[in-house]
Amino acid sequence: MTKGNMLIGQSGGPTVVINQSLVGAILQAKQHKKIGAIYGALHGMKGILEENFIDLRKESLAELERIANTPASALGSARKKPTDEECARVFEILKKYNIRYYFYIGGNDSAESTHIINEQARKFGYDLRCYHIPKTIDNDLKENDHTPGFGSAAKFVACAIMGDNLDCRAMPGVKIDVIMGRHAGFLTAAAALARVYPDDGPNLIYLPERPFSTGKFCADVEAVYKKLGRCVVAVSEGISDEKGVAIAAKFSKEVDSHGNVQLSGTGALGDLLATEIKKRTSITRVRADTFGYLQRSFAGLVSEVDAKEARTVGMLAVKEALKGKEPSGSIAIRRKPGKKYAVTFERVPLANVSKETRHVPDNFISKSGNDVTQAFLDYARPLVGKLPVIGRLKGVKVVKK
Amino acid sequence: MTKGNMLIGQSGGPTVVINQSLVGAILQAKQHKKIGAIYGALHGMKGILEENFIDLRKESLAELERIANTPASALGSARKKPTDEECARVFEILKKYNIRYYFYIGGNDSAESTHIINEQARKFGYDLRCYHIPKTIDNDLKENDHTPGFGSAAKFVACAIMGDNLDCRAMPGVKIDVIMGRHAGFLTAAAALARVYPDDGPNLIYLPERPFSTGKFCADVEAVYKKLGRCVVAVSEGISDEKGVAIAAKFSKEVDSHGNVQLSGTGALGDLLATEIKKRTSITRVRADTFGYLQRSFAGLVSEVDAKEARTVGMLAVKEALKGKEPSGSIAIRRKPGKKYAVTFERVPLANVSKETRHVPDNFISKSGNDVTQAFLDYARPLVGKLPVIGRLKGVKVVKK
Repeated sequence: MTKGNMLIGQSGGPTVVINQSLVGAILQAKQHKKIGAIYGALHGMKGILEENFIDLRKESLAELERIANTPASALGSARKKPTDEECARVFEILKKYNIRYYFYIGGNDSAESTHIINEQARKFGYDLRCYHIPKTIDNDLKENDHTPGFGSAAKFVACAIMGDNLDCRAMPGVKIDVIMGRHAGFLTAAAALARVYPDDGPNLIYLPERPFSTGKFCADVEAVYKKLGRCVVAVSEGISDEKGVAIAAKFSKEVDSHGNVQLSGTGALGDLLATEIKKRTSITRVRADTFGYLQRSFAGLVSEVDAKEARTVGMLAVKEALKGKEPSGSIAIRRKPGKKYAVTFERVPLANVSKETRHVPDNFISKSGNDVTQAFLDYARPLVGKLPVIGRLKGVKVVKK
Repeated sequence: MTKGNMLIGQSGGPTVVINQSLVGAILQAKQHKKIGAIYGALHGMKGILEENFIDLRKESLAELERIANTPASALGSARKKPTDEECARVFEILKKYNIRYYFYIGGNDSAESTHIINEQARKFGYDLRCYHIPKTIDNDLKENDHTPGFGSAAKFVACAIMGDNLDCRAMPGVKIDVIMGRHAGFLTAAAALARVYPDDGPNLIYLPERPFSTGKFCADVEAVYKKLGRCVVAVSEGISDEKGVAIAAKFSKEVDSHGNVQLSGTGALGDLLATEIKKRTSITRVRADTFGYLQRSFAGLVSEVDAKEARTVGMLAVKEALKGKEPSGSIAIRRKPGKKYAVTFERVPLANVSKETRHVPDNFISKSGNDVTQAFLDYARPLVGKLPVIGRLKGVKVVKK
């Protein structure tokens, strides 16, 4: 195998464990003599095209370990999808810097970029080891049981909804919480992990996997409110109508280079839904919060399992690139069958994780379409780890005098 | 002192440690033979007026300890300000149930209610021990160095901004974070605790204590953006213009019985400010998050100091009611002079903590009016406790080829 330099980049929305993957890859790379310089590309594809690299061998071990525990992409990120011309340029840059080991941490868009660059290398007979390292709080990568970043974001959502449900119990009303997830509702579904008592919120859960009807939504909320005197709703930012038009898209015109409409960083969807409830029902106290960027970047809240697996996929990508049979691929997380949670890691072809989105499977969604099933809870619980233990007053009523 | 029953209620916006005060009071009350039944009023003043009480002696110690660590008011809360007629009714109810020990956990509105009820008791010569127990994430109670609930909410804000700053560094743009605080900017100011490196956000901080000008705001943001290529802004939900009109009030008509306009539970203010930035500058990536109810109810994130002090004020209110010279009062937290953080607790008259709001003092606000001072950081840091340790790449640039 060719001796040469390594380049690593981070792409897409950050997570609180994406730097675990970065540090896992760097530390593994340091153990191999075939790898010369270890370059980091600043802001993903943008940094590659601008040849904006830093020398990762100059970083101390102590600082790297602190960085592993630091949220958001330490190298900087970008949502840049390279054009065909740019892919050709990337290839020229890799040659110029004698880069033989290429790693790109990101979601399915990033896997696609990596796939295109790999194809270029094959086409021109350039010996390149080209690996994608999975990351996304959306948990929507094909081939994976789950993705690094999801467990920690799900833990944030569960803790937030747990507190919010208690808040809504204390000051009853309708509370709508808008949760990240453009096409896949895994993160919104994770809100269900917050339940401790049978009447705990989220009382309703709306995922992008089911068509959203505002009329049905208002009727659902009213029914819960009539029964419990309160209602906590978890809504995915990506909910769409019967025609597949995102409800939030009506309020935003901003589009990135992947053609994605801005959904986060605005409270518009939550406010719209709250207004509809006020308009169509007699409920007066209606509030909406949009969890926003906190879900993916909140400092100090991490799922231990998630952090460990994120480190492992980074480490294994480098290992596989150096010792594996295949010159390219992505590291997928597979769950072992059995009651006790355990995973294996496997190299899969880049094409298999590119572009396409994995959706919440049907058996995870209740028949009513506004809740999740026990199968989902069993799936998600080990990924999140321990949640806060809460109590509730027995509340023995005093007889009125 | 008269033997009789005890009534305790929780009022206003919940916090993550308000149940510490409740449990502190209950456990202390159990130690005194003068106290007969321990009643809990469901949903504060509403529960009192409806004689909706529960028997708190029926709760197990183990469950009470779990409840102490559970966010939001376990008894339920309300924002009900009793009218004069209702106060007279409360007094009749207290007599009917032979309540001689009255405790109300809340902010300055709750202190006022307690004050009115106490005045009634004095007027009619009814022997009532009447105590307010401080609570508010706003940290705006007179007589107090700080209030239970603030430290934990401040910790949430600091962790959120710490992550958000890293997120904005990874994907540069302008990020506006709207933080709770109607008239007092303490919680928004706490965003500054997130800074680790000199260029870390929040790069700008806007408090309700200084008049807000949208033009000046946009110019400030643009200046930071030009210098750093990004800008994280912490904005209090209560920011008001030169005439004292809340910027958010223009978007909400909902008012509670204290005359307060709805500020939280909507993303309108953040979205408005983001729109102004986009309109008045050439910056394209502008995002806004409204931290909303998560600040006061997020499960599992607590300041240890805050939890301990919340427990203590609950416990001391009961102790003071039974053994103190005065029949009424509020327990205030005072800070001891000296470098090491230490506090004392003191009974103060109810009137002193009623109605009025304590504002962020001038020496905590920078001359520019868009930041806090070192004095504020020194004040706030011990209340929050340890924050996550983060790292940053040294980033030694690779010479371009």
